[in-house]
Amino acid sequence: MATVRNHHRMATVDALAQALEISKACVASESGRLPPVREAGALHAELDLGLGEDGCSFEELVVRLRAIVEASPNSSNQRFLNTLFGGREPAALVGEWLAAVSNVSMYTYKVAGPQVLVEQELIARMSAKVGYESGEGTFTPGGSLSNLTAMLLARNEAVPNAREDGLSGTPLTVYTSSDGHYSIAKNAGILGLGRARVRRVDTDSEGRMKPDALAAMIDADRAAGLTPVFINATAGTTELGAFDPIPALARVARAHGVWLHVDGALGGTLLMSTRHRRLLDGCEHSDSFTWDAHKMMGVPIICSAILVRERGLLQKHLNESADYLFQTASDDLNPGVRSLQCGRRNDALKLWAAWKLLGDAGYGVRVDKQMALSVRAAAMIAADPDLVLVRQPQSINVCFEVRGAASVAVCAELDRTGAIKVGYCATGDRCAIRLVCVNPETTDADLDQFFGEVKACAARLVRDDLPPTPPSERRSPQQ
Amino acid sequence: MATVRNHHRMATVDALAQALEISKACVASESGRLPPVREAGALHAELDLGLGEDGCSFEELVVRLRAIVEASPNSSNQRFLNTLFGGREPAALVGEWLAAVSNVSMYTYKVAGPQVLVEQELIARMSAKVGYESGEGTFTPGGSLSNLTAMLLARNEAVPNAREDGLSGTPLTVYTSSDGHYSIAKNAGILGLGRARVRRVDTDSEGRMKPDALAAMIDADRAAGLTPVFINATAGTTELGAFDPIPALARVARAHGVWLHVDGALGGTLLMSTRHRRLLDGCEHSDSFTWDAHKMMGVPIICSAILVRERGLLQKHLNESADYLFQTASDDLNPGVRSLQCGRRNDALKLWAAWKLLGDAGYGVRVDKQMALSVRAAAMIAADPDLVLVRQPQSINVCFEVRGAASVAVCAELDRTGAIKVGYCATGDRCAIRLVCVNPETTDADLDQFFGEVKACAARLVRDDLPPTPPSERRSPQQ
Repeated sequence: MATVRNHHRMATVDALAQALEISKACVASESGRLPPVREAGALHAELDLGLGEDGCSFEELVVRLRAIVEASPNSSNQRFLNTLFGGREPAALVGEWLAAVSNVSMYTYKVAGPQVLVEQELIARMSAKVGYESGEGTFTPGGSLSNLTAMLLARNEAVPNAREDGLSGTPLTVYTSSDGHYSIAKNAGILGLGRARVRRVDTDSEGRMKPDALAAMIDADRAAGLTPVFINATAGTTELGAFDPIPALARVARAHGVWLHVDGALGGTLLMSTRHRRLLDGCEHSDSFTWDAHKMMGVPIICSAILVRERGLLQKHLNESADYLFQTASDDLNPGVRSLQCGRRNDALKLWAAWKLLGDAGYGVRVDKQMALSVRAAAMIAADPDLVLVRQPQSINVCFEVRGAASVAVCAELDRTGAIKVGYCATGDRCAIRLVCVNPETTDADLDQFFGEVKACAARLVRDDLPPTPPSERRSPQQ
Repeated sequence: MATVRNHHRMATVDALAQALEISKACVASESGRLPPVREAGALHAELDLGLGEDGCSFEELVVRLRAIVEASPNSSNQRFLNTLFGGREPAALVGEWLAAVSNVSMYTYKVAGPQVLVEQELIARMSAKVGYESGEGTFTPGGSLSNLTAMLLARNEAVPNAREDGLSGTPLTVYTSSDGHYSIAKNAGILGLGRARVRRVDTDSEGRMKPDALAAMIDADRAAGLTPVFINATAGTTELGAFDPIPALARVARAHGVWLHVDGALGGTLLMSTRHRRLLDGCEHSDSFTWDAHKMMGVPIICSAILVRERGLLQKHLNESADYLFQTASDDLNPGVRSLQCGRRNDALKLWAAWKLLGDAGYGVRVDKQMALSVRAAAMIAADPDLVLVRQPQSINVCFEVRGAASVAVCAELDRTGAIKVGYCATGDRCAIRLVCVNPETTDADLDQFFGEVKACAARLVRDDLPPTPPSERRSPQQ
């Protein structure tokens, strides 16, 4: 039996050594082109993804895994500029690997031990950055579910019997800007509030929610017999990277007695920078705060926290009696009583590792680099007669157009060939290319390469007279 | 710049090599004792978990991470028998590590590329095992949220305007057995149904839901003007590992026109065994199915799928228009339109790696080993005059008592010293120790060691005349 056990252990160690080798090759390729887009059926067949009755040897598996990794986009590649995350802190990846080896679930101190304390340290540190004096929080599987948790608390605090008796009676309303994240509507659909009860408040020319418009909508809804329960202020919008004016929104929220949430999924990390945290001034007056560390902090996805100003609300609205789970330690040490989830992965160790290494100061430097990159990118655009800067960047999103070229078509063509992954966004009646300066390892040479690829691609499309993809050919999601 | 870039890459590779070394040490220690329970404040200080303004050197970080890993429970240790997961497939851990290196988000084909196809292959294979002919599905962050997704679909199909207009009017009711998982009540609270609308259906002596009792409750609720929307059949209850009688429940569901969900978070994996899948007979008649691969399949947490019989419902009830995200490829290749989440981590590659290696056949052998272990454990209990088998195990949970000893106190003392992590569960008016035979590497010698530790601990407690922990000293969760 001991031999069998040792064999299993050696197999594990050998397997992990293979994973390291594949990972090294992956890291080494991070300045090359991305894999070009392939037709799904052909790619499935080529990579031999099919599962069947029989297995394969470990050697065959390694060959296949290597091929899958090579065919996958890599968000640390300098040509990957498509999303609000990209690049990595090496220490965070170490934390992620180690969390997977211990493989504990973050519901109890009995099972997770010091990992609970690691998470608590992060919650405390993040809460202090927000300005919550005695707050609480939990890690969740992403910004959408962090936002959902906040909306749940707001709903239940406004309708005290909602958790026990369900929703009925007066319709409840929710407010977010027209540039707010789609999770607000999705969550309203999930929580029984109704997507139609989400009010889209107008924004100013920079994409920031107008406080007067918000106040007027709340007044109108109240007058119509509806109950406003939740205001979402966005700190770093998905498209423009804009920051809603939190102090003014906090005044509206307080005057109307409505829960104020800050969706800092993107921009929360600016709290680490003494230079840029002013964009979040007033966030200490909010009731809850979403902060994704997997975006600007370089931590592998997912790493999101929901922070709450008033201690006790998470447990009040999420705890269930479950004697088969919560058997030792106090509630304070059993995060499962404050979570949407039961079993929950350890998303804390990876952030802790990077934060311990960098300190607040190092993260501040990192943020300042990201912000400086967007300033440089904007300057390069402004200086280039072929490019148009659509908005002066407020944070790390830089939205621009190539003169005479359709942004949608340029992005699609760049993607098809593996030159660049970058997305577009609608701003008003224009469609811009959205460059996200989230990877602090990006250099001026990388930016030169990026704009060079974009312009060459646009010129090729114009020369070949390819029509811009009409809206009808884009995917047409349910409205 | 190239030098800076190369430096960053070398730092990454060096960091990962350190992670491998720590992981090797962790794997090597998996037959030793577990870390004894420590007081939280002392442990926090000793491990130097505090974050501050300044960072530390990478060498210091490695020392600290190693100490944290050593102080953390390890769910692959043979003494870790506390939860419904434990042990690991080495290939799955390789998949987990590689997913973290590529670090893509599973919302679009543009960003995740072949990883979308990996997930689709798994969904198709799992759906076929359940017996859904043209089903769909998505990976979620755990069984609770898989169940929530199913309840959301059921709610919205029963109340067609619920997603748009919110809930109001007729109360909706939900049915689960008295042994069902606590997430059903928690989710009812979240979804606006109300925890008080969850009916706890009686179970038989083996912990299985009584179909007649279910039918009577539905009839009574209908007669009272309520609208039944969701029946949860549990395939592998948390405490006893019992299987509700799915064929009979399916007949009740069909006769009453109510959505039938199977919570196979624990027991779904039995579908891999030709010998044991009969416990899930009839599951092809359900509307949805939760299956956690991080439990019996040895995949790092979290790895959970919600499978749905009718294709199109996930998108119908979860999709949002988000042009800034869904820019290329068809909806079919963009899993984000079918998810609770926006950004979503890749939980698919780790399961794919293990499944590709083992094949269906290998996983069948693995399940049969787990089930055989529970039979052996039960036989050892039955043959031991100091032990009492509380129930003949139906699957991998083996519930027993030590004669004359309080199970709660025994579990706490075993935990305190690091001898064994195991939990207790209430069954009727008794409190049993719950041994979960989920790690197929467990040997007869390990079981001998386990029972030896348990009995020695119980004898010590009786000898020292330590009183069993009274219920009032256990945590007292909100009811």
